[in-house]
Amino acid sequence: MNTQIKLAKRPKGLPEKENFAFEEGPVPSPESGQVLIQTIYVSVDPYMRGRMEDTKSYVEPFQVGKVIDGGVVGKVVESKSEDIEEGNYVIGHLGWQEYSVAEASTVRVIDKNLAPLSSYLGVLGMPGLTAYFGMTDIGQPKEGETVVVSGAAGAVGMIAGQIAKIHGARVVGLAGTDDKVQYLKDKAGFDEAINYKTTQDLHSALKEACPNGVDVYFDNVGGHISDAVYPLLNDFARIPQCGAISSYNKGGDDTGPRIQTYMVKSRVRLQGFIVSDYAKEFDQGAKHLGTWLSEGKLVYKETINEGFENIPDAFLGLFEGKNIGKQLIKVAEE
Amino acid sequence: MNTQIKLAKRPKGLPEKENFAFEEGPVPSPESGQVLIQTIYVSVDPYMRGRMEDTKSYVEPFQVGKVIDGGVVGKVVESKSEDIEEGNYVIGHLGWQEYSVAEASTVRVIDKNLAPLSSYLGVLGMPGLTAYFGMTDIGQPKEGETVVVSGAAGAVGMIAGQIAKIHGARVVGLAGTDDKVQYLKDKAGFDEAINYKTTQDLHSALKEACPNGVDVYFDNVGGHISDAVYPLLNDFARIPQCGAISSYNKGGDDTGPRIQTYMVKSRVRLQGFIVSDYAKEFDQGAKHLGTWLSEGKLVYKETINEGFENIPDAFLGLFEGKNIGKQLIKVAEE
Repeated sequence: MNTQIKLAKRPKGLPEKENFAFEEGPVPSPESGQVLIQTIYVSVDPYMRGRMEDTKSYVEPFQVGKVIDGGVVGKVVESKSEDIEEGNYVIGHLGWQEYSVAEASTVRVIDKNLAPLSSYLGVLGMPGLTAYFGMTDIGQPKEGETVVVSGAAGAVGMIAGQIAKIHGARVVGLAGTDDKVQYLKDKAGFDEAINYKTTQDLHSALKEACPNGVDVYFDNVGGHISDAVYPLLNDFARIPQCGAISSYNKGGDDTGPRIQTYMVKSRVRLQGFIVSDYAKEFDQGAKHLGTWLSEGKLVYKETINEGFENIPDAFLGLFEGKNIGKQLIKVAEE
Repeated sequence: MNTQIKLAKRPKGLPEKENFAFEEGPVPSPESGQVLIQTIYVSVDPYMRGRMEDTKSYVEPFQVGKVIDGGVVGKVVESKSEDIEEGNYVIGHLGWQEYSVAEASTVRVIDKNLAPLSSYLGVLGMPGLTAYFGMTDIGQPKEGETVVVSGAAGAVGMIAGQIAKIHGARVVGLAGTDDKVQYLKDKAGFDEAINYKTTQDLHSALKEACPNGVDVYFDNVGGHISDAVYPLLNDFARIPQCGAISSYNKGGDDTGPRIQTYMVKSRVRLQGFIVSDYAKEFDQGAKHLGTWLSEGKLVYKETINEGFENIPDAFLGLFEGKNIGKQLIKVAEE
């Protein structure tokens, strides 16, 4: 049998378990040019919240009653393609289901010996590339500059901060638990990290951590955390706006101090981006990430939950800040 | 006698007449290398509100008890410089006073026969260059794109919209009186103009005026006008953030819908700028503006109040939206 997870109904505000429906169907059969893939790792990512809405965005919304899809690493268990062999491991944009059939051309064979399978969904995959292009193309940190990263213990933020370190910047991370703060300082090489949940006066804490102001603000979260950063921006600061997770579940009720005056006063460049805009440069980005990884300049962390049935919980946990690093669900043994 | 206007005290919220003090002193005498200038035109500009605050910004704050300064066109009535002759007209950053002494090197001789004296403070001066660099460097409008300009009947907005037209864009202006709207459509060649004060549902009106969405939003105002524009931004839209006049008098109480999600979703580039960042390219910008003006591709409008004593009123009028085009005060005959 092939268990699948479908969008049961669209959420209002914070998604709940009732937004997801488990269904069972037969394992599909590949036709010519196709492969049958057994799901091993499923990626859950904050941007998926946007796809649960029925509104125009940069990716198609999930459809009610249809299988949810996202990044998946799996093993080819049957091949009717000349390009991919049975036993190959692949990464692709596939359904939240135990088995998927895909055109061979839409998945990519990955090498388990070069890097752990799971890393292709994290540091070497979409989150790593997101960090890479946001930080290098928009952030452009320079030697001695100060870089602040929000959502710093997440899959993207953790890599973004380390890339800024590689470029010689002072890096300050914002995260929501003491464990995360400790990890950023002890393992990921951040110069400072602040627990925004327990810090009473975030603006003052940031000011102390950034005595020379802020030159790059890599923002994953928006909301009141960003409010505390804007007044510290230096002239010609850059803001790679990677996400705004604090807003995703708030609908139209999300208000805060207006930011336009800061943008003019300090001549700030705030630029939203998504990783697929850089598709033509993926190879170059992956090469840099792989090199830094092999040189030990980049570390990464994963939170891996086990069991297909726990996918929705792991997704919901993203909005509670439960994960350190990349959140994955292991659905089957490698 | 030399009447001067000094900053009497810093305003809280909207400036009032009591923030200004008139004082009389002797007409100063130039020393070697200096010139004595009789003020003819004084420029008042929205950015000056920021200089009334005692906070870090891109220009020095005005000092309490000191003469306020800004753009001035005047006539040299005495010269102790070899570079400037008595009778020359000059433009410079000078005090709100009837007579100024300046180092000859800090003012620029202008030619009354090439363009009207007043235009050097408007279309050929700081506001024109602001429009030019914001629109061409950040906005980058392309043939067939849709450009929205807020504060469109102001000194900068009016020129910015016309520059977008020259680049082949559809241009929609937002202004606060029917006269302004009429001017933009009839004289300045805007495709559409909307009176934001009398339009009940600004977002819907904008949607109708911009059936293909918004590719460039040249923003002078911020506030609820901008709130209505953000949801209409197309992918890869650009926002030259020129000003945020709606916020200038609000201090810390200025809140509104958060914008980060729009920025990510549509991969928007929002960039604050000020004209002096482009100082090295002023000659090139002025050349373009002058050419367009002489070719009849660019029209401009001035609101000229008369009398030195009316400078503060004209400045305060900027925040009531009284002026169409560049607001000047004529202090003496040419």
